[in-house]
Amino acid sequence: MIGRLNHVAIAVPDLAAATAIYRDQLGATVSAPLPLPEHGVTTVFIDLGNTKIELLAALGDTSPIARFLARNPAGGVHHVCYEVADILAARDSLIASGARVLGSGEPKIGAHGNPVLFLDPKDFCGTLVELEQVADPSGH
Amino acid sequence: MIGRLNHVAIAVPDLAAATAIYRDQLGATVSAPLPLPEHGVTTVFIDLGNTKIELLAALGDTSPIARFLARNPAGGVHHVCYEVADILAARDSLIASGARVLGSGEPKIGAHGNPVLFLDPKDFCGTLVELEQVADPSGH
Repeated sequence: MIGRLNHVAIAVPDLAAATAIYRDQLGATVSAPLPLPEHGVTTVFIDLGNTKIELLAALGDTSPIARFLARNPAGGVHHVCYEVADILAARDSLIASGARVLGSGEPKIGAHGNPVLFLDPKDFCGTLVELEQVADPSGH
Repeated sequence: MIGRLNHVAIAVPDLAAATAIYRDQLGATVSAPLPLPEHGVTTVFIDLGNTKIELLAALGDTSPIARFLARNPAGGVHHVCYEVADILAARDSLIASGARVLGSGEPKIGAHGNPVLFLDPKDFCGTLVELEQVADPSGH
């Protein structure tokens, strides 16, 4: 069911400092900051060639990463995102197997304009998993 | 400096259960378990097409992931691994920029037979970063 790793999201307390670490110390290609008010985050994409890192900083008073940053003040890996070809089929299969989907269970439009769902970390090795529907999750 | 994302390592308390989640629930291609006594872990590789997940379970009494699992009993993302072309040049550049390398600072031979180093999470957004020297980190 799952295809490529779309991205690894790292929540950070200071987006400018984190961007400088990846750009200047690690020598990576970084994007300009992209505020996504409807998602409560500002994001910077780091292109690694085969996949990307997304740095996430809180935006607004009700950011979904605020609680994570309160628990992890230095930042940390917030979630991993796997690509799927059919997010409703993936959801239904996962629910049938006993896994829990967060929220209403209805996909939302994610930061890349594609339908996304988040899976309960309790059912996935303590890791918050995002599923994102893309046209070709195998990358062929 | 950094090239491709070589892998995301997820530490898990129960390797068989974690493998079943990825194979049966998420429908991914998983390897057989590979004990690496010299690294204190048993690992299962999950091939995602563009990169891989490495499930890590503790092996032996002095596993380097034992403390992580004590703090995160359900498991969680343990580290991310970026590829570099020249690990000594990468190390020297990072140290010159003020970043801290864990351990002696001398590369060890990692799980894939390549030289690796780990960077202090305090200097990298709360994320444990492994650098692995590969022949072609750009994937070209």
